Amino acid sequence: MRRFPPDHYISGIRSGDRLVLSRAITLVESQLESDQELALAVLEQVLPQTGQSIRVGITGVPGVGKSTFIEAFGKYLTGAGKKVAVLAIDPTSQRSHGSILGDKTRMETLSMDPLAYIRPTPSGGSLGGVANKTRETMLLCEAAGFEVILIETVGVGQSETLVHGMVDFFLLLMLAGAGDELQGMKRGIMELADAIAITKADGDNANAAEHARLDYQNALHLFPPAATGWIPPVLTCSALQNQGIVDLWQIITDHQRLLMENGYRDQNRQQQNLDWLHSTVRQRLENRFYAQPGMRAKLTEIEDAVRNGEILPLQGARRLMNFSP
Amino acid sequence: MRRFPPDHYISGIRSGDRLVLSRAITLVESQLESDQELALAVLEQVLPQTGQSIRVGITGVPGVGKSTFIEAFGKYLTGAGKKVAVLAIDPTSQRSHGSILGDKTRMETLSMDPLAYIRPTPSGGSLGGVANKTRETMLLCEAAGFEVILIETVGVGQSETLVHGMVDFFLLLMLAGAGDELQGMKRGIMELADAIAITKADGDNANAAEHARLDYQNALHLFPPAATGWIPPVLTCSALQNQGIVDLWQIITDHQRLLMENGYRDQNRQQQNLDWLHSTVRQRLENRFYAQPGMRAKLTEIEDAVRNGEILPLQGARRLMNFSP
Repeated sequence: MRRFPPDHYISGIRSGDRLVLSRAITLVESQLESDQELALAVLEQVLPQTGQSIRVGITGVPGVGKSTFIEAFGKYLTGAGKKVAVLAIDPTSQRSHGSILGDKTRMETLSMDPLAYIRPTPSGGSLGGVANKTRETMLLCEAAGFEVILIETVGVGQSETLVHGMVDFFLLLMLAGAGDELQGMKRGIMELADAIAITKADGDNANAAEHARLDYQNALHLFPPAATGWIPPVLTCSALQNQGIVDLWQIITDHQRLLMENGYRDQNRQQQNLDWLHSTVRQRLENRFYAQPGMRAKLTEIEDAVRNGEILPLQGARRLMNFSP
Repeated sequence: MRRFPPDHYISGIRSGDRLVLSRAITLVESQLESDQELALAVLEQVLPQTGQSIRVGITGVPGVGKSTFIEAFGKYLTGAGKKVAVLAIDPTSQRSHGSILGDKTRMETLSMDPLAYIRPTPSGGSLGGVANKTRETMLLCEAAGFEVILIETVGVGQSETLVHGMVDFFLLLMLAGAGDELQGMKRGIMELADAIAITKADGDNANAAEHARLDYQNALHLFPPAATGWIPPVLTCSALQNQGIVDLWQIITDHQRLLMENGYRDQNRQQQNLDWLHSTVRQRLENRFYAQPGMRAKLTEIEDAVRNGEILPLQGARRLMNFSP
């Protein structure tokens, strides 16, 4: 693909040109050194135009109806005149080379909305690397004037923690009566939610959803209170009947107002940026270390010995540190 | 302090000599390179004698009555003829140079019990480093024949996650009606618990404790089920009235039996060892990196710029990676 000079990207993004935005995101996602240089130059220049959006993370196990929910929620927001960007981190796409948002049949209406911008999960690289690309993409979208950034992820791995670490508001979607469906959901994630929405609260499922809402509401009261003073509400919603969507936006804006006033929004973002800094350094140190010639085979050998209890992890670490190709 | 030759430590530990055990733990905790060499040599030799204990992590906010509980629980176990070691990871001791178990007035009865061995928190170093020392200490205690290892930590920081990563069973102590007390408790920790015990369930507090038990029991049902098939129970206990102590031990042994049968105990331990390997490498890479001359000042400068939004975390990481002293 043809590359533009930095200024072309910068002015294009600032004027909200989606074609240029997409091209810039492609740079961010590229593994090429030269592309990454260019991406960083662009990001540096648009940095003052970032940070103005409300950043919302949305997670839930497969089957909870995330796409349908995001389509309804996104349409409501664009209907209210807001520019909405939808991004995704999908760990499963790392293996299957599929993508949460890659399925063309999904979010059909929203994807044709001139106020919405949908970008599939970047593929390839480690989960941490992909998450960093999503952070950068979020900044580009903010510089292009998007006011709400929705970051979707699957609630069954490590990606939720990463998404939680880059958003202002973390929404957990749950199904009424889900038992087995929750199997595999990352433990500890419920306590990180700023709100829980029980999806598919319509038809025969409406009663069960209301029961689930009360159950979760009671349960959340037992959780350690957040330092921010925010008490996570539980609501039911139905994308089908367009119910709960307005309420959810009200909740998010209430949360935003509270945290803007008591300073926690900025404090969270500062901490997120510091975490991003440290995790990037950590990743690069590890990448550099494990990329040494012969290291891959050595690592496998040592992992096996540790797994079988033949050597202490400590010994293993020492052997790896002393390994010279 | 005088050092022994490795064989003296090894045979002393194997024969359950507490003085030698204590000396070996001092080696593990030492920052001296030569001590660490010696410690590793000892650990390597006793490795086949490790792994036979039940490893139990115990956490709860200050005021929940951890020491009193551990004293009662430990006494019950030694009363049943079990050899019990009590270790601690206390992040607060990093700052105050105090220690959870350092207070001599605590666990008075247990500390005089010939079947019990109590070791205060190692001080100094990073939390991750301290946690590694606790892991090694646990192995030494196992080699010395201790059958139950209790690892105590405060439920208000990062140490609970570390303890969770080194035990077979993770117990969360909670107070009835605690609201503000929970402030600062690490969010997500409730969902990691293998059991919750409501402490101080006696006198005027007995009713409230029973109510809390039911509330938490209901709440836990809503959590994502563990892959192990274990459903975390909630019980009340009173160290004062020696109530709930026997039941808790029954719960722990039930858990152990289930996970031994379905293979998850060994799988968990293997995964814990792999995590230990990788986190040790990561720590050492980071230590080496940040220990470079001039790096400390550079890091502060870059953290400030990131915190103030002047530069991207990505730029900051790059500057740190390119920094040459």
